[in-house]
Amino acid sequence: MNKAIVLLSGGMDSLVTAAIAVRDNEEVNFLHANYGQRTEDRELACFEALCDHYRPRRKMAIDLTWMSQIGGSALTDLSMQIKDHDGSLDVPNTYVPYRNANLIGAAVSWAEVIGANRIYVGAVEEDSSGYPDCREVFFAALQKTIEYGTNNAIPVEIVTPVIHMNKSQIILLGAQLGAPFEHSWSCYRNSDAACGTCDSCTLRLRAFAALGMKDPIPYKKD
Amino acid sequence: MNKAIVLLSGGMDSLVTAAIAVRDNEEVNFLHANYGQRTEDRELACFEALCDHYRPRRKMAIDLTWMSQIGGSALTDLSMQIKDHDGSLDVPNTYVPYRNANLIGAAVSWAEVIGANRIYVGAVEEDSSGYPDCREVFFAALQKTIEYGTNNAIPVEIVTPVIHMNKSQIILLGAQLGAPFEHSWSCYRNSDAACGTCDSCTLRLRAFAALGMKDPIPYKKD
Repeated sequence: MNKAIVLLSGGMDSLVTAAIAVRDNEEVNFLHANYGQRTEDRELACFEALCDHYRPRRKMAIDLTWMSQIGGSALTDLSMQIKDHDGSLDVPNTYVPYRNANLIGAAVSWAEVIGANRIYVGAVEEDSSGYPDCREVFFAALQKTIEYGTNNAIPVEIVTPVIHMNKSQIILLGAQLGAPFEHSWSCYRNSDAACGTCDSCTLRLRAFAALGMKDPIPYKKD
Repeated sequence: MNKAIVLLSGGMDSLVTAAIAVRDNEEVNFLHANYGQRTEDRELACFEALCDHYRPRRKMAIDLTWMSQIGGSALTDLSMQIKDHDGSLDVPNTYVPYRNANLIGAAVSWAEVIGANRIYVGAVEEDSSGYPDCREVFFAALQKTIEYGTNNAIPVEIVTPVIHMNKSQIILLGAQLGAPFEHSWSCYRNSDAACGTCDSCTLRLRAFAALGMKDPIPYKKD
């Protein structure tokens, strides 16, 4: 029997990852983290809606707001500005230092306690904002730390099913699996409707457009 | 210029590690985590006293109490019992799942923000309670995740200076460096005086005795 933990931010990639985990595992457990990101209220609402939708065996929201305490990212530091998408290949200021290591760290700890053997992460490598901790080479290294740094009673595997997909492929697969995109929030800015112009909105809207599909969430320009 | 972050639990091993970091770096920064451990009030008091003693450039105490939320360890779950030392070689119930990955994860994030290049961890491999995340092989694996999972503007190195020392060697080095052992707390149990009989007290008292030295902290039997 496969028991999965899904890291669920409330964004589109983690939503589709959750849909995949629900399809492929006998048991799923959903984990959300508040790391002091400016859109946490919206992400948490999506997390709760997705828990209502998928009915995981367990759900847990944890506090990692020490990340905003240390700052250094436009996502957690309100004095830094979220830029509009400009096509730059540099690591953007929305990078949250070593975020995925910390999120997965919490998931591994939880996995040891509840006996889960898979941790699903909705990271995307190429068609993304260019964060170093979204690369396959990073997850492979992290996998080694799980083998050496846990009691390893049940081996725990990091699973990144959408890592080599582009956003259109992710949406298409999500649609096939019936993922409720209306309960997802990708925008880096915190407003009633998604901004449509930040890195995250730009990648999302471009992908829906390429498929000739309409994104069900509201945007400012609508 | 070397800028260090020291993970400071308030225990003896991290205290001596801090003394080494103070000796070997131009700048030190102290990081403490409240992970819901039953002795946090005592550990935090030691952390504050050690900050007063060593005057780090920055100090930060962060909240990782999600670890007690998930439970699974006698250190964080009050319904589990702290056993007396019995010489067993199994992973004991005081093991906190994947704790060091999470503690170092926070330190790496902070290092990226403040530009630190070294993270000091007072882990001890052999003469210890037998935790998997205190082994050199684990830290080597974690080092790789830092290379791949950060923006790597300043390479960050995990430093474990006491990992192959036994407790007596640690105490001797600490004494040579003037480490204030009176401001350290090793006991797993939370009482006015250290219990003297848990794994951690047993290893500590045995080491002081082997050196013919007196441990300056109060014990119940005193």
